[in-house]
Amino acid sequence: MPISTIPPLNRCLEAQIQAKIDGKTKPPGALGQLETLAKQVALVQGSLNPQLTNPHLIVFAGDHGVAREGVSPYPQEITAQMVLNFVRGGAAINVFCRQNGIQLKVVDAGVNADFDPNLPIIHQKVAKGTANFLHEAAMSALQCQEALEAGAELLRKIHTATQCNVIGFGEMGIGNTSSASMLMSEICGLSLEKCVGRGTGHDDDGLQRKLNVLQAAQEKQQLSAQAADALQVLKTFGGFEIAQMCGAMQEAAALGMLVLVDGFIASAAFLVAQAMQPNLMDYAVFCHRSAEQGHRLLLEYLQAQPLLDLGLRLGEGTAAALAYPLLQNALAFLGEMAEFGDLG
Amino acid sequence: MPISTIPPLNRCLEAQIQAKIDGKTKPPGALGQLETLAKQVALVQGSLNPQLTNPHLIVFAGDHGVAREGVSPYPQEITAQMVLNFVRGGAAINVFCRQNGIQLKVVDAGVNADFDPNLPIIHQKVAKGTANFLHEAAMSALQCQEALEAGAELLRKIHTATQCNVIGFGEMGIGNTSSASMLMSEICGLSLEKCVGRGTGHDDDGLQRKLNVLQAAQEKQQLSAQAADALQVLKTFGGFEIAQMCGAMQEAAALGMLVLVDGFIASAAFLVAQAMQPNLMDYAVFCHRSAEQGHRLLLEYLQAQPLLDLGLRLGEGTAAALAYPLLQNALAFLGEMAEFGDLG
Repeated sequence: MPISTIPPLNRCLEAQIQAKIDGKTKPPGALGQLETLAKQVALVQGSLNPQLTNPHLIVFAGDHGVAREGVSPYPQEITAQMVLNFVRGGAAINVFCRQNGIQLKVVDAGVNADFDPNLPIIHQKVAKGTANFLHEAAMSALQCQEALEAGAELLRKIHTATQCNVIGFGEMGIGNTSSASMLMSEICGLSLEKCVGRGTGHDDDGLQRKLNVLQAAQEKQQLSAQAADALQVLKTFGGFEIAQMCGAMQEAAALGMLVLVDGFIASAAFLVAQAMQPNLMDYAVFCHRSAEQGHRLLLEYLQAQPLLDLGLRLGEGTAAALAYPLLQNALAFLGEMAEFGDLG
Repeated sequence: MPISTIPPLNRCLEAQIQAKIDGKTKPPGALGQLETLAKQVALVQGSLNPQLTNPHLIVFAGDHGVAREGVSPYPQEITAQMVLNFVRGGAAINVFCRQNGIQLKVVDAGVNADFDPNLPIIHQKVAKGTANFLHEAAMSALQCQEALEAGAELLRKIHTATQCNVIGFGEMGIGNTSSASMLMSEICGLSLEKCVGRGTGHDDDGLQRKLNVLQAAQEKQQLSAQAADALQVLKTFGGFEIAQMCGAMQEAAALGMLVLVDGFIASAAFLVAQAMQPNLMDYAVFCHRSAEQGHRLLLEYLQAQPLLDLGLRLGEGTAAALAYPLLQNALAFLGEMAEFGDLG
C-alpha cells in the first residue's frame, strides 16, 4: 500500500492554545522551547490537552555496499552484531528506552546477515545490503519503493495495535553516514566537504578517504540536474534502513503522530521524506544537534531547532529517547500548571 | 553551626570508571556529555555503580530592597504570591518536580510578607527583604552569616532525614537578577554592561534603567579593591535567598551530594559559594545556559558545560528539574549497558 498523504496542520485552535500558554503563571515566553513544543503537540493533536500515548522508538538496521570502500573504520559485521545487542537489551538505546518508558522495536531493513526468524526482530529485509553506489545505484527503483512502503506499513500496524501517537526513529548501519552525506549534498545542494564528517570514529586520513570515495561517487552518478527528485536521490545513494525510515516518518505524520528525529542519519532520512511531503515538517521534533559537522548544516537547512546538544554521535535513536522526557515535561506544563486566573 | 569543609574529590577510582565507560558497546566518547556526567557522578559517589537517591529541589525565596528602584518590571508582591503558588502546587517547578520524581521544598529566606506558619514552607526568614544596596549594604555581616548557616543547616537536615544524594537549587525573588549581576560583576571582574540582562521581561528602557541603578550602586559601594572577598560581595549585594542557597550548595557538596545548578541567579550563588570553597566545582552539574546574556559569560568564567540550552528564563529551579532525567539516563547507561566482553 502506498504511503499516505500528510494533511496540513489544522491551525484553528492556534489562538486558544497560545492563550492557554500565555495564561500560565510565568512571564510570557519564559519556558522557551518548551512552550514552542507544547504548542506544536497541541496543534498536531488538535487538542488543548494533548497527551502522549504508548511512545515507540524504531531502530531500522541496514548494510551499505559502499562500506567496502573503507568509508567507515568499522567492519560491516558490526551492523548485525549491534542488532543482536539490541535484541539482548544491552545497547544504549535499550537502556534509554527502558529508562524513559518507550517501547523499542528493531527492524531488519537490509542487514547483510541471516537472523534467526524467531528473534524479536521485525523482519523486513529488502536485500542483504545495498549495492555499492560508487559503481551503481544503491538500490533498484523497485527496492526503493518496497523499502518506503515497508516502513509505512509497519507504522500503520503499530498505530492500529497500540494507538501510539509519538514515535522516535533511529538507525544502525555501518557506512550510513556516507549515505546520509550523499543525500544531504544532493538535496541541499551543498558540497560534500560540508556534508561529510567523521562518523563514529575517523581520523584525518580516514575522513579524507571517505570524502574521496563520496566525491568519486557523486561524479559518477551525475544526479545534480535531477536534484529536485528526492526519490531518485534516495534510490541512488540511500540505504534500506534510511528508505524504510523515510516511509515510516511520512506515514507516522499522516496518522497524526509526532515524529521524533534523532541524529544525522535520521535527519537525512527526514530530509528526503520532507522533500516528498513538505507537510511532514509540522509533525517533527528535532531531538539533537550532533557533533557531526554536516548535521549542524542540515538542521540549519531545515530551519530546525533541536532540543538537545550533548555531543552525542551514536545514532540508534539515542537522542530521540533522551529528548522524550522534555516532551513529557512540556505537556505536563501545558496540562497542569496554574493560570493567573487561579491565583486570585 | 558553620558550613562544613568540602573535601577534594577522591580520584582513586578514575581509571576504573573510565575503563568501564570505554568498555560499553559504542565507539569511545559517542555518548558525549552523558559520559562526562556519568564519570563525575561515579567520582562524587566513589562508586562504579552510582545511584541517585531521593532527589530534592529547594526553592529559596527572598525580597530585595533594590526592587524599589524599578529594576524589575514586576512589583515585589509577586515574590510572596509565587511562594503561595509553589505551596499550592501550581507553578512550573511543581509540575516539573512531579513529572520527574523530585521532592520539592520551598524556603522563605527573606520574603517581605508574613506567611501562615502552618503552610508547608520552611520558615527561615532572615528579614523582610534586604536593604536597598543603592544606599547601603544589602545585609549586615550578622545577617549574611545567619543566611549562609541557615542554608547549610537545612541541607544537613534533609540529608539526615532522607539520605538524599542529589539536590537542585532554584529561587524566586523580584529584583534578584540585579543582585546576581552585581555579584557576578564584582567576582568575575566584568563590567556591569556584560552582566546585566533583561531578567524576566524588560524592554530597552527598563534595561537601561536597571543598568543605571546598578552602576550607581557599584560606584557608591566601591568594593573593587576587595573583590577577592566573596563574603563581602555577598553581604553588600546579595539576597537572602542567594546567601542561603550559597550556604546550602556548599553543605550539599560537603555531604557528598551532587549539586544541580539552575539558571542565572543560582549560578551567581554558585559563583560566590565556589569562591568560598573551590572544591565545590567538582560536585556541580550545570543544568542550563539561559537566554540571560550574563549567564553565558558567567558559565564561561566557570568553564561550565551546561546540559540544556532551551531558552528558559524562569528560574524557580526549572532547568535543574528538567535536566534531572538526563542524569538518570547517564547513570542508567553506566549501570545497564552491555560491555564489549558481553557480546562474544
